[in-house]
Amino acid sequence: MKRHLMVAQSGGPTAAINASLAGVIRGALDSEAYDKVYGAVHGISGVLDGNFLELSEKAREDGSFLDRLTRTPAMYLGSCRVKMPTVEEDPSIYDRIFQTLEEMNIGAFFYIGGNDSMDTVTKLAAVAKKRGSDIRFAGVPKTIDNDLVLTDHTPGYGSAAKYIATSMLEIAHDTYIYDLPCVTIVEIMGRDSGWLAAAAALARNEYNITPQLVYLPEVPFHRTTFLEDVRRELKRSKNVVVAVSEGIRDENGVYISAKEAVADKFGHKQLSGVGKALENLVKKEIGTKVRSIELSILQRCAGHATSAQDLEESVRLGSYAVEKAEEGETGFMPSVHRLSDEPYSYEIRMEDLQNIANKAKGVPREWINEAGNDVTEEMLRYIRPLIRGEVENEWKNGLPVYLPVAHLNHVGE
Amino acid sequence: MKRHLMVAQSGGPTAAINASLAGVIRGALDSEAYDKVYGAVHGISGVLDGNFLELSEKAREDGSFLDRLTRTPAMYLGSCRVKMPTVEEDPSIYDRIFQTLEEMNIGAFFYIGGNDSMDTVTKLAAVAKKRGSDIRFAGVPKTIDNDLVLTDHTPGYGSAAKYIATSMLEIAHDTYIYDLPCVTIVEIMGRDSGWLAAAAALARNEYNITPQLVYLPEVPFHRTTFLEDVRRELKRSKNVVVAVSEGIRDENGVYISAKEAVADKFGHKQLSGVGKALENLVKKEIGTKVRSIELSILQRCAGHATSAQDLEESVRLGSYAVEKAEEGETGFMPSVHRLSDEPYSYEIRMEDLQNIANKAKGVPREWINEAGNDVTEEMLRYIRPLIRGEVENEWKNGLPVYLPVAHLNHVGE
Repeated sequence: MKRHLMVAQSGGPTAAINASLAGVIRGALDSEAYDKVYGAVHGISGVLDGNFLELSEKAREDGSFLDRLTRTPAMYLGSCRVKMPTVEEDPSIYDRIFQTLEEMNIGAFFYIGGNDSMDTVTKLAAVAKKRGSDIRFAGVPKTIDNDLVLTDHTPGYGSAAKYIATSMLEIAHDTYIYDLPCVTIVEIMGRDSGWLAAAAALARNEYNITPQLVYLPEVPFHRTTFLEDVRRELKRSKNVVVAVSEGIRDENGVYISAKEAVADKFGHKQLSGVGKALENLVKKEIGTKVRSIELSILQRCAGHATSAQDLEESVRLGSYAVEKAEEGETGFMPSVHRLSDEPYSYEIRMEDLQNIANKAKGVPREWINEAGNDVTEEMLRYIRPLIRGEVENEWKNGLPVYLPVAHLNHVGE
Repeated sequence: MKRHLMVAQSGGPTAAINASLAGVIRGALDSEAYDKVYGAVHGISGVLDGNFLELSEKAREDGSFLDRLTRTPAMYLGSCRVKMPTVEEDPSIYDRIFQTLEEMNIGAFFYIGGNDSMDTVTKLAAVAKKRGSDIRFAGVPKTIDNDLVLTDHTPGYGSAAKYIATSMLEIAHDTYIYDLPCVTIVEIMGRDSGWLAAAAALARNEYNITPQLVYLPEVPFHRTTFLEDVRRELKRSKNVVVAVSEGIRDENGVYISAKEAVADKFGHKQLSGVGKALENLVKKEIGTKVRSIELSILQRCAGHATSAQDLEESVRLGSYAVEKAEEGETGFMPSVHRLSDEPYSYEIRMEDLQNIANKAKGVPREWINEAGNDVTEEMLRYIRPLIRGEVENEWKNGLPVYLPVAHLNHVGE
C-alpha cells in the first residue's frame, strides 16, 4: 500500500513559498511511492492539533489548482512561530507528532521555511533516527532574507529583490520630478543581512544613478560618515536616494532605531523606524527636504510582481525533495548550486540539515565597497539572474486572482 | 505657416500623467493646424526659464517613444510647485510668458495637472483674453486624489486605486497566515478626500473580508468609536485590517496626526503618521498585536501595475484637448462623463476652467455607510471599472523599461 506525504509551511511569508508547496504536490503526483498529500494547517501546530487538508485531492479535481497555488503569495496553509523544544526537554510532543504521522500512514514530511523551520525539521529527523522510524524528513528552503547557508540563494529572495528593484526605479522617477534638493531614505527588510537592500542598486540604469548610497547591516553604520556621504552626493545631484537595511547598527552594535527594538521569543529583534531615524537626522543636520519610505511587508507578498526564475526554482526544489525522499533520503534540504552567472545556470543538490539549521549567511564583505556605502558589481552580478522573467498572472476585475487562503475553511473544523 | 504647441506638467506624480502627455503629442501629430510640440521642463518654470524639449521630433524619430512615454510613471517633463500670482499682483511674469509663447509661434498651451495647475491655466486664459491673444489655453486633468469637480474621475486615479486594491489583497494574504489576533492599519494617501482609501475595499472577495474598516476624511473620526469598531471586529475575525486616509480629522477638525502636520506654501497640510498614531492607540487601549503600513509614494508611481482603462482615457483626454484647441476653444478642461457603470461607458466633454479651478470634490456622504466606518456598494460600483485591464509592460533584465527622465538632459543646458 502506498504511503502518504505531509507538508507544512512556517516562518514569514514570501511570494514563492506556495510555489514550493506546489512543487511538493507535483512531486507526489508524479511519484510511485506516495499517494495522498496532506497539508498541516499552521505549520507544526497543525500536526499537533490534527488540522489537515488533503491537497492531492484538490490538485486532481481542479486542473488550475497548482498553477494558481504557485502564483498565490504568503502561506496557503498558514504559518506558525513555534520554537520546538529538544526531545530531552519534552519527549511527549515528539511522541504525539510521530503517533499522528504513523496513524496517518505518512512516509515523508516536508517543512517549507527558513532558519527556524530547518531547526524544527532537523530535530524531527534526529528523533526519527533514534526511534527507528522510517519516515523521511526534509526541509524545503524559503526566506526573502536569503540568509540560509549552503545554498546559492533561497526561494522567495528573487521575487522580493525584483519588487524592491522595481519599486526603487519607480521611486527614482518620482523623485526626479522637482528641481529642488531632496533626500529620500528607503527602508528595506533585513534584520541581520543586507541581501534585500543590496537589490535596490539594481534600479540603476543608463539614466538613473539612484540609489547613490546603500547601507547594509554587515558594516557598522557611522552617523557622521553617513551625513558626509549625503552632503557629498547632494553636491553631485539634486536627488539623493538612500537604500538602508532595517537592521543597520552603529559601531557599538546598537541598532540605529534601538529605541523601538524589542526581541521576540526567538531572540530576533523586531525593528521599525530606521528610515524615520535617518530622516530626522538629515532634517536636523543638513536641513534639506527629506522623506522616508518603508517598503514594509509588500516586499514579501507582492504576488503580482514575482520573478519567473524564482517561482520556477521554488517549484523544482519542492519536487526534488519528494524525489529524494522516495529514494530513501532523510534529514536533508535541497539547495541551489550556481554553475554560472551569464548565462545563468544552476543545479539542485542535497545538503545535510544539520549543517544548515541555526546558521546564517550575510553578504560577504568583499561584495560591499570599501567605504561601506554601496555594493560592488560582483554583488549585482549575483542578484541579476534571480529577478529575471515575469509571471503571467491571472486577473479578474482589475485584481490578481489568487487561491483562497486554505485554512479559512479546513478539515478538522 | 503652421503654429506650434506647448505642453507642461505640474503637481504631484501619477502613473498616468505621461499618458496624457502622449495624448497631446498624438493629437498634434494628427492635426492640420499644429507642427512641433515643445515640452516645457519643470512646468511653468520651464516657460519662464526658457527650458524646452522638442517632443514631436522624438516621436517622429522613435516609433516606440509614445508607447514608452504612455507607460512611464511620474512626470517625463518634470514638475514644479509654483503658485502663480494674479496679473494684478505681477503683470511682468505674464508679459514674459506671452512674449516667449509668441516668439516661439505657439498656437496652444496645455497644462497637465491637478487643482493648482488648473488655477494657473485659468489665469493664463484670462490674461490671453485681456491681451487679445489668440493662443489657446487648456488644462488636462490628472491627480490620483480624484478631487477635481465636473469630471466623473481624474486620470491617474484608476491606476492608484488598482495599486491600492492589489496591495490590500496581498496584505490580506500576508495577514491571514498566523492564527493569532492581529490588527493591521494601512495608511493611504488622501489629504482632504477619501477616494483613494475607498479603493481599499475592492480587495474584498469571496474569501477575503478585509479591510473590515475604512475611514475617510469626509466623516469626523472618533477615537472611542474607532476602538469599539476594532474590538467588535476582533470578536468576528482574528485578522482585522483597517484602511485609513492620511487626512482623517477628529470632531474638532484636528488631524489625527496633528503634531506632524505642517502647511506647505499652498496651505496644504503635509501629513504623516496617522497609521502610526492609530497603531499606538490600538497597542495602548486594546493591547493586541498591531502594525501599521504606509503605502507611501508607491501608490502614485507604480508604473508596473497601472490600469489599462486609466491609461487609455488619459491618452484620449490629451488628444481631445488638442482637437478642441484646433477648433478654436480655449479656457477649458476635457472631462470624463460616465454614461453607465456596467458595461462601463463614457464620453469626453469640455468644461469651463473657471468652474473647476480652486474647487474640490469629496466622496459623497451617501457613498459612506451611516456608521462612517465603511463605503457603500454604490461607491465600489463607481470605482470598479476604473481599475480594469492590465497594461502589457516592457521588461528588461527583470525590470520595467521606462523612458529616461527627459530633463536630465534637455535643450537649454
